[in-house]
Amino acid sequence: MFREQIKVLDCTIRDGGLINNHKFDTRFVREVYKAISRSGVDYMEIGYRNSKNLFSPKEYGLWKFCTDEDIKKVIDGMNSNTKISIMVDVGRVELDDIKPESESPVDMIRVASYVKDIDKAIFMANDFAAKGYETTINVMAISRDQGPELDEAFHQVEKESDIKVLYIVDSFGALYQEQVEHLVKRAKSIIKTKEIGFHGHNHQQLAFSNTIEAIIHNANYLDGTVYGIGRAAGNCPLELLIGFLKNPKFDIRPILDLISREFIPLREKIEWGYIIPYAIAGMMNEHPRAAMALRNSAKKEDYREFYESLVNTEID
Amino acid sequence: MFREQIKVLDCTIRDGGLINNHKFDTRFVREVYKAISRSGVDYMEIGYRNSKNLFSPKEYGLWKFCTDEDIKKVIDGMNSNTKISIMVDVGRVELDDIKPESESPVDMIRVASYVKDIDKAIFMANDFAAKGYETTINVMAISRDQGPELDEAFHQVEKESDIKVLYIVDSFGALYQEQVEHLVKRAKSIIKTKEIGFHGHNHQQLAFSNTIEAIIHNANYLDGTVYGIGRAAGNCPLELLIGFLKNPKFDIRPILDLISREFIPLREKIEWGYIIPYAIAGMMNEHPRAAMALRNSAKKEDYREFYESLVNTEID
Repeated sequence: MFREQIKVLDCTIRDGGLINNHKFDTRFVREVYKAISRSGVDYMEIGYRNSKNLFSPKEYGLWKFCTDEDIKKVIDGMNSNTKISIMVDVGRVELDDIKPESESPVDMIRVASYVKDIDKAIFMANDFAAKGYETTINVMAISRDQGPELDEAFHQVEKESDIKVLYIVDSFGALYQEQVEHLVKRAKSIIKTKEIGFHGHNHQQLAFSNTIEAIIHNANYLDGTVYGIGRAAGNCPLELLIGFLKNPKFDIRPILDLISREFIPLREKIEWGYIIPYAIAGMMNEHPRAAMALRNSAKKEDYREFYESLVNTEID
Repeated sequence: MFREQIKVLDCTIRDGGLINNHKFDTRFVREVYKAISRSGVDYMEIGYRNSKNLFSPKEYGLWKFCTDEDIKKVIDGMNSNTKISIMVDVGRVELDDIKPESESPVDMIRVASYVKDIDKAIFMANDFAAKGYETTINVMAISRDQGPELDEAFHQVEKESDIKVLYIVDSFGALYQEQVEHLVKRAKSIIKTKEIGFHGHNHQQLAFSNTIEAIIHNANYLDGTVYGIGRAAGNCPLELLIGFLKNPKFDIRPILDLISREFIPLREKIEWGYIIPYAIAGMMNEHPRAAMALRNSAKKEDYREFYESLVNTEID
């Protein structure tokens, strides 16, 4: 038995872009879009809309900026029911850069926000909603922010925002299933007029199981990425999620093909997955920043020293 | 808060041996034993006790047979509180090969059994218990055997056996957390005088989360392996389990060292972990046999064809 309300969002290019500065070429993105479309996945998130005043197009690939023109080159001529999503960070987008939805290939805009920035996130999301987009707010690093401020943010989202989905985002891959249960139940108890979503990170091999846990407690918007690609350890593998969901609209086979042809070779060039320093960062509820730096150093396999450097940091 | 009754069993050498025909040299096994001992893990399972009449010592390494003499060479001179476990399969051991516990370096014998062989397993386990060993019965491939025969086996174990622990074994990596919850609760409702254990396989990246799920529902005996080594996708990574458990007796650092020094190089030589054909086998509740054969063929990355070969098998 399946739950018809469940929607799956593929964020392969968006979260994967955090490993390679968003330098996927258009051919590759089209291959992903084709496979995602054929697999019946509901949304594909293609990158960030960042201001070119803040980040240099020389340093970053196209999907750091996601202009409507570049997106059109991906979807042009393709037969697809998959909607296009982009992500924006609070403070990094110029609202005037977002045209009305009717003039854009984008269907959904997701606003990534820390709890402390929720007022700004609601302001932005409402602007996008008024322009005709489906909108979400994705509460990042939620494992660090489970106090009364989170409840207040949930109440604000319910009362003040026009979003469609509030996402719980385990940025640090730190949550265990009991915490996911608690957070989803808490969100649903306060936010009654919008859907709840979940985005996991896989530092402790829990992104898929935490997504299942969110499903069990009635989260209906679920993120995954092909072969689990994403920053640090990556995300919930889309192929596992599709294998789990019973909705007959999904077909795993185009994703399997895509992994064989594109992601096995890609994994030789850029690194993600189960890697001990990311697991340690997850256990410690830390941003993977230090672990990512370690992986680019000569000490990349010195796990004990890395562990001790985190444990022995003075907290005061 | 931790639960004092929880015991962790490392089966690195035993389950890892299924990848390399048990050909770990004694130096390597001593390194593992040293790290496991220093980390405070309760048991280390070192291999199988198989009859040399059934398997050739020319074809297999020492840990297919686990003679008391070979085990003594591993533990000799080492300061350790870690108990030694061996596994036996129904029908593959000669009972006379098992000396009384007082004359052996082995502390625990685990009997691996399908549900259909439970009578034989109880007979064997009771023989070992009478000789002074801690004993368990590990119900393999339980995802295929959840009908009334399983309840009957649980009742028999409770009434007829002298074992210490009944293990639920997800041999195919097919269980999701709701099924683990169901199985552990079911076992505990029938088996009231023994402990319940859990051994997961990681085909769908669920071995760790399923182990947590078993803990939540009061399973107290938990299996893990260093860096998740084990047949096909491997097992619950011991380092994640130790990171999760709050018992101050555990120290993750010797395991991190061991991974850096021994398991990163080993992984270059033999394969385990998240590999799509194993994930497919897990989704389908199939033995990984066909996937293992695929990985040794020229078609090792032809995932779609492999998927279709399983889907299209005539069932009749």
